[in-house]
Amino acid sequence: MLLCDIGNSSYHFLEVNSEYFKNIDDLNYQNTVEKDYKEDSSVFNPSDIKEKVFYICVNQNVKTKLKKLQNWIDLSQYVEMSKYYKTMGIDRVMACEAVKDGVILDAGSAVTVDLVKEKKFIGGFIYPGVQAMSETYKNISTALDYSFNFECDLDIMPKNSRDAISYGYLKTLCSEVISYDMDIYLTGGDAKKFAKIFPHAKVDERLIFNGMKKMIKKADLC
Amino acid sequence: MLLCDIGNSSYHFLEVNSEYFKNIDDLNYQNTVEKDYKEDSSVFNPSDIKEKVFYICVNQNVKTKLKKLQNWIDLSQYVEMSKYYKTMGIDRVMACEAVKDGVILDAGSAVTVDLVKEKKFIGGFIYPGVQAMSETYKNISTALDYSFNFECDLDIMPKNSRDAISYGYLKTLCSEVISYDMDIYLTGGDAKKFAKIFPHAKVDERLIFNGMKKMIKKADLC
Repeated sequence: MLLCDIGNSSYHFLEVNSEYFKNIDDLNYQNTVEKDYKEDSSVFNPSDIKEKVFYICVNQNVKTKLKKLQNWIDLSQYVEMSKYYKTMGIDRVMACEAVKDGVILDAGSAVTVDLVKEKKFIGGFIYPGVQAMSETYKNISTALDYSFNFECDLDIMPKNSRDAISYGYLKTLCSEVISYDMDIYLTGGDAKKFAKIFPHAKVDERLIFNGMKKMIKKADLC
Repeated sequence: MLLCDIGNSSYHFLEVNSEYFKNIDDLNYQNTVEKDYKEDSSVFNPSDIKEKVFYICVNQNVKTKLKKLQNWIDLSQYVEMSKYYKTMGIDRVMACEAVKDGVILDAGSAVTVDLVKEKKFIGGFIYPGVQAMSETYKNISTALDYSFNFECDLDIMPKNSRDAISYGYLKTLCSEVISYDMDIYLTGGDAKKFAKIFPHAKVDERLIFNGMKKMIKKADLC
């Protein structure tokens, strides 16, 4: 069986042996034996895959294409969406499904921050991703064209331009996230960068897949 | 006498009668009797002005042009820059000169946040302005193309897309600024918008001019 998390630019696959569902709560076990890989959305043809694929998709064009393929099963139909809100991205929903208590920071093109307490979604916010924010500063002024300094000491008010934008981007987010006083889960392509400013956070690049697995089990699909 | 704060797109003038320097600390008096107006940088010709102008300028091209005009006096030469840092914008410096104790939030194309304690610059950071950040979200996804909700309740985790970006932009900034526990001064074109999330702040759209006046007095130029 395959799991697939489809974003705007790529298909992210995870090869899952249904045996592994026995070990659904043993993340270390799963992360060592399962393989994940990505395919570029612009060239990949989903009908080339014949085995069963459980997917989530935020790309409307791809979604329409996949509806015609019987072996591609949209997991979003099994989500109790009343727990969330209508326009919330399905990737955020799946990450929330993976966690019992905590704050989830998914660092991709956007940074989404979601709060879950006793398996209940409390709410969440959206902040720009590293690349998007970096371009924002550069577009405001060429004098602000720096890469962010993730090593910047966020306890000291900056006195140079690079730290002034790094602090502006990172400290504001950091203060807010830490204020919840909950376990922090980092996922998404830039999770490791953010681990520098959240040293006690758990980095789990497969959090969304873990949520998808829980959904498959809950909906009795395996 | 004229004061002029030159940005990237406009010349911002303030007509000052030197009599007013007697009332330098009476902001209410000054704000009622002094007139300010803007000229578009792309069409305005500074050599049309014959009276004395004390200016600051963040636009390098304009600065080069003004150096040739004897009645245009660059106030940046009187600043003790060792109190600040080399690449810090002169507009931020002048706002800091206007304040004895407090945090200054200048909301323009960027939002600059600077801390001053007992007339000493402690440090500051740079955050994107309303327009720039709004475009950032829109560019990440058309699903995030909303104007910010400055009325959003920042004590509640959002459960809709518009509030999710508004909270992401405003609450993170707000938490950081409030954590300093100091008087807040708002200036810049979007000062009134930010007054909604900082209800106890002082809005002073002429803070930079007030800093310039103090500098003129300190340097004994009037």
